[in-house]
Amino acid sequence: MRRLCIHTITNKPWSVEECIARYSAAGIGGITMWRYNLEGRDIRAVGRQTREAGMKIVSLCRGGFFPAATAEGRQKGIDDNRLAIEQAHELGTNLIVLVCGAAPGQPLTESRKQIADGIAAVLAEATAAGVRLAIEPLHPMYADDRSAVNTLRQANEICDALGSPEVLGIAADVYHIWWDPELKSQIAHTGKAGRLFALHICDWRTPTIDLLNDRGLMGEGCIPIRQISDWVDAAGFDGFREVEIFSNRLWAMDQAEYLGMIRTSYQRIFAEC
Amino acid sequence: MRRLCIHTITNKPWSVEECIARYSAAGIGGITMWRYNLEGRDIRAVGRQTREAGMKIVSLCRGGFFPAATAEGRQKGIDDNRLAIEQAHELGTNLIVLVCGAAPGQPLTESRKQIADGIAAVLAEATAAGVRLAIEPLHPMYADDRSAVNTLRQANEICDALGSPEVLGIAADVYHIWWDPELKSQIAHTGKAGRLFALHICDWRTPTIDLLNDRGLMGEGCIPIRQISDWVDAAGFDGFREVEIFSNRLWAMDQAEYLGMIRTSYQRIFAEC
Repeated sequence: MRRLCIHTITNKPWSVEECIARYSAAGIGGITMWRYNLEGRDIRAVGRQTREAGMKIVSLCRGGFFPAATAEGRQKGIDDNRLAIEQAHELGTNLIVLVCGAAPGQPLTESRKQIADGIAAVLAEATAAGVRLAIEPLHPMYADDRSAVNTLRQANEICDALGSPEVLGIAADVYHIWWDPELKSQIAHTGKAGRLFALHICDWRTPTIDLLNDRGLMGEGCIPIRQISDWVDAAGFDGFREVEIFSNRLWAMDQAEYLGMIRTSYQRIFAEC
Repeated sequence: MRRLCIHTITNKPWSVEECIARYSAAGIGGITMWRYNLEGRDIRAVGRQTREAGMKIVSLCRGGFFPAATAEGRQKGIDDNRLAIEQAHELGTNLIVLVCGAAPGQPLTESRKQIADGIAAVLAEATAAGVRLAIEPLHPMYADDRSAVNTLRQANEICDALGSPEVLGIAADVYHIWWDPELKSQIAHTGKAGRLFALHICDWRTPTIDLLNDRGLMGEGCIPIRQISDWVDAAGFDGFREVEIFSNRLWAMDQAEYLGMIRTSYQRIFAEC
């Protein structure tokens, strides 16, 4: 369980306090917090409480959403990312995951340019706060309104175009990239470039009945999770394996029972790691 | 309307006879028939009837589905493609669209190999029958069980690996490939290689509420249809623009009214072509 981390959204019915208590009691080493969890909270206190419970805050989810049809909209995106950097700093995590965004109807090339511009605009703040930014390529089925960055290759190209700042890297989520014919080589390339910052895991169910909220628990689908994780490790990554599952079906379950299932399925896949 | 073709599945509530009569009356030049339409029919008679109505049968949908866990399953796939070639020949069309298939849980690399092997196994029959085969790359959200071929690059690589037989090419469907960062260059490459056999159009709705049957009518979504079609034309394609829409919402409409909407939206996009 040393490398197991859970995203709080995975157990959406739980408050952040309940996530901290339950994960800690279950011997889970890492937690990634979603920003909705922090609303109305003393963020520094949440950070302290998590560390006192013996857990590392692996990252804050999420920044990004840079593209917009208007300059005003794009500035709003940049401001929100500055806020996220502040929040990450207060929370005591050194990583923010970026879901880069897309503006429906706007050419993807334009959205990609706006994403690079938006990231460039917040790099100084990120560096000053000691907070790294991880571009998360999203599955092409989200290219309309969630991310115009849909492959590891594209994420790497943005990092290159911005001069490969140390603070900028990539989050690899098996759900989004498992189908990519370049997956193995791009993972190796990302690691070699020193920018493989995070690994998210879940599974792809057949059939998938909802584009957003029908992800599977590891083992319920067709993603070769262990193989991808091994490629990621071979690329030099030794961080947490973060379970991030959006699922109406699993959110409707008893969450304590579900947490047990997460541990069991993780152990089944990574037994000897 | 010279280059407008409609897939019979777009008007799923109609029989093939009704599609022929309605499309012909609307001045539509091409029709692509789905195999379910031909069940229990005299296929040669359907072909004759379509030509007498002044329409070209652009293609037969669909062959493919080569991957399977067992050798028996793969042989069944090959046999079905041989049958499709026979049916296309009887129907009097020179093109079959291949939805290549995938076996959930089987590594994609293995499925891709089985696809190439399956196509290789039927090339001689296709050539003898004068029927061309078009690999249709499917959106990555179908990589689990519908197609392990998800980009134009991959489709081109299969054609190359099989020695670029003249009978083998590619069907470009905007729904599946619009997000691809390599789209423009891969379309140009496909055309240059002489294997750009078909163009399918529809739109991507935001939000999309069903992975299979929530495609949009052209204009209802974010796909730059005209731009992609222009790239396809610039690559040397001068065939039909085939409207292929799976939509529970549109199938529930009055189909005559819907056909009018198809014509209007097509004219809006391609007015001066």
